[in-house]
Amino acid sequence: MYKYKVNIEYDGSKYKGWQRLAGTEKTVQQKIETLLSRLLERKIEIHGSGRTDAGVHAYQQVAHFAINQQLDTDRFLSTINEMLPQDIVFTSIQEVPEDFHARLSVKSKQYVYKIWSSPIPSALRRKYFFHVSMPLNIPEMKRAADYLIGTHDFQSFTAVKAKNKSTVRTIFAIDIKSNNEELEIYYHGDGFLYKMVRIITGTLLEVGLGQMTPEEVLAILEKKERRFAGETVPGYGLYLYKVKYE
Amino acid sequence: MYKYKVNIEYDGSKYKGWQRLAGTEKTVQQKIETLLSRLLERKIEIHGSGRTDAGVHAYQQVAHFAINQQLDTDRFLSTINEMLPQDIVFTSIQEVPEDFHARLSVKSKQYVYKIWSSPIPSALRRKYFFHVSMPLNIPEMKRAADYLIGTHDFQSFTAVKAKNKSTVRTIFAIDIKSNNEELEIYYHGDGFLYKMVRIITGTLLEVGLGQMTPEEVLAILEKKERRFAGETVPGYGLYLYKVKYE
Repeated sequence: MYKYKVNIEYDGSKYKGWQRLAGTEKTVQQKIETLLSRLLERKIEIHGSGRTDAGVHAYQQVAHFAINQQLDTDRFLSTINEMLPQDIVFTSIQEVPEDFHARLSVKSKQYVYKIWSSPIPSALRRKYFFHVSMPLNIPEMKRAADYLIGTHDFQSFTAVKAKNKSTVRTIFAIDIKSNNEELEIYYHGDGFLYKMVRIITGTLLEVGLGQMTPEEVLAILEKKERRFAGETVPGYGLYLYKVKYE
Repeated sequence: MYKYKVNIEYDGSKYKGWQRLAGTEKTVQQKIETLLSRLLERKIEIHGSGRTDAGVHAYQQVAHFAINQQLDTDRFLSTINEMLPQDIVFTSIQEVPEDFHARLSVKSKQYVYKIWSSPIPSALRRKYFFHVSMPLNIPEMKRAADYLIGTHDFQSFTAVKAKNKSTVRTIFAIDIKSNNEELEIYYHGDGFLYKMVRIITGTLLEVGLGQMTPEEVLAILEKKERRFAGETVPGYGLYLYKVKYE
């Protein structure tokens, strides 16, 4: 068997997320598996680094698949990109050792959440930035974000608690970059729980809007209950940015 | 009569350009006039700073309209933006003296053309950047652009020659900014002829691809014939960026 790692960029606008679903729901994984199986003339399963939710985008999703023949990777890349819809692109492919696993071998992940911070909405950014019309106190948001750096139980910041599964994760960095009305929040961690980035972003926005203090964010972290944290911001502002391996 | 100047941002993807057309063609001007007339309960005509072609976007288009009543501008702005489709936004409005004219009073205009310069297409930028897959020699493009700065007869770089109309324009600056694979060409001039920005961009790309020398661009300028210049690049990479008045 030959194993391949692929980097995939996608515009999630028209998909019900990454993960293959039962039935006819359009997902990124299902779209890729259908076309890969057609191109390689056998049933191919791909394994992503993790799920992304409905509407969420990826600058770099990583996946692997195995096949019992060696591929001409340059030719493969241009052919699959011609077959794929324009909102999904394989940006690179490389052969990897048999023990590589797109999800299990992940070392860290980066996400970015994009916000259009202006009293007026933006016609050109409407599909890719979450619009916040009230002014944001960015220094306070940064101070709140600092309380979340490190290894914590993030149970307050995830949508569901799966039984017997750890909700402890390590966040290495949260960088809030502001460029005129464009605000980008970069998250770097060893892994993120279901909806965690969007709930943290919603909570930081409440701080930015003056509805919560940075110290209350620390208190929420310690409470370990979802209902104290902020709202889940929409998927279309979220991008899987980078997936890193050893 | 009261006269108002409005700044308008739009995503041109779904429109046949700015200018109202006969028949049922969907244009930005027609869409705005229909909704303005409905809101203000009388037939309103708006006058833009100039046309933009099918698919071309605007960070800032400027238009004026006149009406025989004074508007509560804050309230007007939020109401019209609720009525407009999300791909058209009035970003500001101000009352202006009667002698202001959105087209005739223009002092200078800026456009930006966005290029995705990479062997691999981009899923997330596919609708807003023109994809060029072969590598570009940017220093040579800059050298060619410099030949176009100043006051020249740009007849070689426009699609049609209207009789008795001057094709002399002044370009103040062409700035080529490259950020990883994103290439943006900013044009600043006192005015631009029909398709001029897209034909100049197509010509600069031929220089970047090594199909033409910067000196040949100078020669084309002097020939004053459209057929010598490069191809017209697609509208979806072009943005009206700023319109300046006295």
